[in-house]
Amino acid sequence: MEKRKAYAKLTSHTLAFCANYFHGNGFTQLMPVMLSPITDPLGPDPGSSVIKTGEIEYLGQRLSLTQSMILHKQIAVQSGIDRLFILSPNVRLEHPKRRESGRHLFEFSQLDFEIAHAKMDDVFSLMEGLICGVAESTRADCAPELSRLGRALPRFAAPFPRHTTAELIARYGLDWEPAASKEHKSPFWAISHKREFYDREDPESPGTYRNYDLIYPEGFGEALSGGEREWEFDRIMSRIGRDRLGKAQFSPYIELAKGGLTPSAGGGFGIERMVRYLSGAPHVGDVQLFRRVPGEPVVV
Amino acid sequence: MEKRKAYAKLTSHTLAFCANYFHGNGFTQLMPVMLSPITDPLGPDPGSSVIKTGEIEYLGQRLSLTQSMILHKQIAVQSGIDRLFILSPNVRLEHPKRRESGRHLFEFSQLDFEIAHAKMDDVFSLMEGLICGVAESTRADCAPELSRLGRALPRFAAPFPRHTTAELIARYGLDWEPAASKEHKSPFWAISHKREFYDREDPESPGTYRNYDLIYPEGFGEALSGGEREWEFDRIMSRIGRDRLGKAQFSPYIELAKGGLTPSAGGGFGIERMVRYLSGAPHVGDVQLFRRVPGEPVVV
Repeated sequence: MEKRKAYAKLTSHTLAFCANYFHGNGFTQLMPVMLSPITDPLGPDPGSSVIKTGEIEYLGQRLSLTQSMILHKQIAVQSGIDRLFILSPNVRLEHPKRRESGRHLFEFSQLDFEIAHAKMDDVFSLMEGLICGVAESTRADCAPELSRLGRALPRFAAPFPRHTTAELIARYGLDWEPAASKEHKSPFWAISHKREFYDREDPESPGTYRNYDLIYPEGFGEALSGGEREWEFDRIMSRIGRDRLGKAQFSPYIELAKGGLTPSAGGGFGIERMVRYLSGAPHVGDVQLFRRVPGEPVVV
Repeated sequence: MEKRKAYAKLTSHTLAFCANYFHGNGFTQLMPVMLSPITDPLGPDPGSSVIKTGEIEYLGQRLSLTQSMILHKQIAVQSGIDRLFILSPNVRLEHPKRRESGRHLFEFSQLDFEIAHAKMDDVFSLMEGLICGVAESTRADCAPELSRLGRALPRFAAPFPRHTTAELIARYGLDWEPAASKEHKSPFWAISHKREFYDREDPESPGTYRNYDLIYPEGFGEALSGGEREWEFDRIMSRIGRDRLGKAQFSPYIELAKGGLTPSAGGGFGIERMVRYLSGAPHVGDVQLFRRVPGEPVVV
């Protein structure tokens, strides 16, 4: 079996497993959006290295290529769809230095989900069920592929360990992710990051955030990021101001948020990174039939 | 129940049904590609009204937004993946006059599939199984939604009628599709269109094409288009020449085709048009939570 066929089978299996898991848990699958007047600003993470947002002009409107479906997810929840997921290509025009990270692509597909009135713990148990399930099912259904790729996928169980980023920084330094990921044998949660305006800051404890990353073990790094969301209009506006984002660029979102949004929590995870973890691929680009690594020429 | 929730449920059900149908028939699901040096030229259909291809620049390369995955499907088959499908957003920047057709969007998701060494008849029976199955399953699982939308989804059975386009033109005139669609009670096949270079011309009978459209009944129009493919290098080159397409714009594809491609047949169908047909929506944009109708401003 050629490696590319093994990766393709693992990708297909992962897509089927994830979609059926969310359908089975009562989620409504929405269609992706690729072009919109608004998209995820992907800030103010100081590690962000997206060099620009992809944009086109169509009939007099400037439309941005989707960086993530976060704002559309919140709008969909607001329109009464209580449990939703979307499998959407995300375009993030990364700096070519990201080629070396092993885990960045300028185009990948994200499974993005959102749950009205949910809290962090709801997302933790949903995702732990998914990660344990997909690993189990991959071991059972894709044994020839794992064997071809030389991958012994270690066993682990829910619940996953939880650490605040403050604890992780104290132990591993500011760039805690690679070392913490290498040292863990099980996926784990990293909780409370200062980041995008839409992740909820704990009103009782400013500087504490009701958000989370799920980190794969063995050095494979970030699996998912998500959070409870800011839903009160004044807080959204003050967070956008604090991040020095132009309000005009979010005007349709701000308009909808004026009466307050429906509180929700959710997350998003990259399919290619999940397949990389399951297959043990050296680089996330290795799992793509059509490779999309920043800094490498795009052949086809 | 609000209409948008009924449409969202029908969309979600359709996505799940279609993906499981292709997985169940031994297809490998590939990831979509949104940006590539090459994409479907969507020609030389005289009815084509795409005003331009969406393009961006990234690290010195011009990349086109996917108009369809056709060329990537052929390359994937060539790389040894024998039965594949992809659920991919397609961006087609249509002329604003298309707003009136009721069935055009400038962004939609296509389920694109391809089968190595297959013939037209293989695609007919695969698709007839899918269409009968999704209609049956929608009636069973989405009765409250169909009722909310006032839709009585008529019954029909495989095999579907087949007509050549020459027969259809003789009966309904050059613009046969709306009238023929309205008059039929069952989906039907329209066979042999002169169109894109990658659809195979019958070598025994020049001017006859081994391609097909599936047309929904009741005036809902085109469901799918597909064909057996040109796979011999000389024929591909002469067809590209006949369509007066710049060879440079397909150079990575032409390079791969030099030794001949793997013969294949396949097709692609829009999810939104399928949901429109199942739900009886007046306009295909009605089924979208985030409306993408050419000539209408994009709100969000």
